[in-house]
Amino acid sequence: MKITVEDIGHIALGGAFLATGGGGDTLVGEIIAEEAIKKHGPVELVPLDQLADDATVVAIGGVGAPTIMQEKTSNGDEPGWALDMLESYIGKRADALIAFEAGGLNALVPFVAAAARGLPVVDADGMGRAFPELQMESFSIYGVSATPLSAAGELGDSLIIKTRNSTIAERLVRHFAVAAGGGQCTSAEHVMDGATAKRVSVKGTIGYCLEIGRLLERRRGKLDLFLADLADFFAPTHYGAVKKLYEGKIADVTRQVIGGYDVGALRVTAFEKGVADLDIQFKNEYLIALKGDEPLAMTPDLICILDNETSRPITAETIRYGQRVTVIGVGAPAIMRTERALEVVAPRNFGFDRDYVAIEDL
Amino acid sequence: MKITVEDIGHIALGGAFLATGGGGDTLVGEIIAEEAIKKHGPVELVPLDQLADDATVVAIGGVGAPTIMQEKTSNGDEPGWALDMLESYIGKRADALIAFEAGGLNALVPFVAAAARGLPVVDADGMGRAFPELQMESFSIYGVSATPLSAAGELGDSLIIKTRNSTIAERLVRHFAVAAGGGQCTSAEHVMDGATAKRVSVKGTIGYCLEIGRLLERRRGKLDLFLADLADFFAPTHYGAVKKLYEGKIADVTRQVIGGYDVGALRVTAFEKGVADLDIQFKNEYLIALKGDEPLAMTPDLICILDNETSRPITAETIRYGQRVTVIGVGAPAIMRTERALEVVAPRNFGFDRDYVAIEDL
Repeated sequence: MKITVEDIGHIALGGAFLATGGGGDTLVGEIIAEEAIKKHGPVELVPLDQLADDATVVAIGGVGAPTIMQEKTSNGDEPGWALDMLESYIGKRADALIAFEAGGLNALVPFVAAAARGLPVVDADGMGRAFPELQMESFSIYGVSATPLSAAGELGDSLIIKTRNSTIAERLVRHFAVAAGGGQCTSAEHVMDGATAKRVSVKGTIGYCLEIGRLLERRRGKLDLFLADLADFFAPTHYGAVKKLYEGKIADVTRQVIGGYDVGALRVTAFEKGVADLDIQFKNEYLIALKGDEPLAMTPDLICILDNETSRPITAETIRYGQRVTVIGVGAPAIMRTERALEVVAPRNFGFDRDYVAIEDL
Repeated sequence: MKITVEDIGHIALGGAFLATGGGGDTLVGEIIAEEAIKKHGPVELVPLDQLADDATVVAIGGVGAPTIMQEKTSNGDEPGWALDMLESYIGKRADALIAFEAGGLNALVPFVAAAARGLPVVDADGMGRAFPELQMESFSIYGVSATPLSAAGELGDSLIIKTRNSTIAERLVRHFAVAAGGGQCTSAEHVMDGATAKRVSVKGTIGYCLEIGRLLERRRGKLDLFLADLADFFAPTHYGAVKKLYEGKIADVTRQVIGGYDVGALRVTAFEKGVADLDIQFKNEYLIALKGDEPLAMTPDLICILDNETSRPITAETIRYGQRVTVIGVGAPAIMRTERALEVVAPRNFGFDRDYVAIEDL
């Protein structure tokens, strides 16, 4: 399947849905990916299971504070620079690129480098949603080393790191983003062969972004119809149940930037009387939704907030008092719900004193 | 000429002299270099002019706060790791190593990697003394790019950077030292061919360290004899005049750690009455010596303080009240006194509102 300029907008919209409130504003990524495809032609999207076992696969995406992309654009060359740098070090060329995060802006970054290089993008990613840290990628969870990892900043500075663990890698890349990229950079990492990629990736997610984006556009302003379509769409996949969690008005948002993350909470009040409020806590992404004391959904399951009028997903850094919204929960993909994955992406990993309970059991 | 275990102690002592108060404690470097030569055999010291024009030369040394090496030793593997990392990226092996700084600890670091690899060390360096920053290397001054540059920390983390200028490189390496190396790391950089190395290096300086170390040992406790020998030794070289600047007792030391540097001033009082005090200001290295208002020596010329009893050079981070010392000035090597070099290593580059005047003219 070829990804064209027309598809990019849908992938961006669907990516914003899977981002569960994080993942950054997709607009800049959309423009840059569209320009790349206009210039170099459509990009092949390869199903994960059709990847050659000996193909060299490289994960790619942006690192940095989401808010920065609203003020300072990327020049569009960083993905290519990061890839060049990594390839020089590993001594071979990438055969295919994969998104390390299908949620938000990072669903689009692989297409920028892939178009310029004539490479395919794998229809899969490393999260099946958005998460804030490197070690939360399924690639890391299932044993692939994050490093050698390269990064490139907008003025042409680049680095490669090889570290004993992904915590050190995360720290070095974030510092590089600040010191050499004005707060953001593009990173290429998790080099693996095709056989490994098949084992450790969240499959089908770029195609899902495309499809969800199309559904959102078709059902714009008709969220109930969208929800029915979405449930039908996810039913045969490895994602869990789709549930409408709540509908109401944003009554309160508190937000602080702590350690480079947007950390906070928001409250939704129902339109009907006598219904308990919904409280959602976030760290870049929406992580847990509580109706009174009763949990309705929690990480790694997806919590998405859609604007009732435009049907657009609303990010945690832009949500504000007065918006009319529908809150939707989607069960995480099976590969992100295993015991091994839950050691890294469960509520406790975000500081909540609570065991994970699947959305289907709530 | 083969450098043996016996030579390392002399190179360390002579390196401490050329360090002009900076360059870190040489003891740890001495032990590690001796162990490497015991294990792998002597290291060939190649005269700069005998280097093949097409040889791949890599500069190597330690980066970080000198005080850290007094508390936390290196494991001795970092130089090899840094070199491996750089070679993987440039796609070729080093044919020879060169010290980027012959002053202090960094006169010894090339021998650690060279012994393990069976490589020669070039009899030259990039400063002819010690200086605190990357862009003060003659390699940078005469147009060789500092990057690609690699660094390795003691726990096995490593990085490569390629940056638009050496200021960004300096910042990234210093952060790496802190984030991954506990405050220090080994860096390999300034990849150049032999023909370039001949043009941009300060020649003969490792051999000079060896010879100065031998003189210091032979004349231990006899500083006047040492001074006469030293003047004879330097006379036919590209270094400037040797002068005894002052003799006296350390009367005062003020020292602050500012931005990762030891910044401060010290005062020496003469043994005779009626002689003005000598004030020396330092930023890691001793930078300017004033007798009352009269300058006696200034950067890039060397200012060395020797203990009158042991004849050992005293570093700025260990000098203390009450020590009996002799202060010696040595004119910088010609290559560090050119107009181009003085744009980077003159008093103004260290914040002194004063033009450079050569020690011979003071």
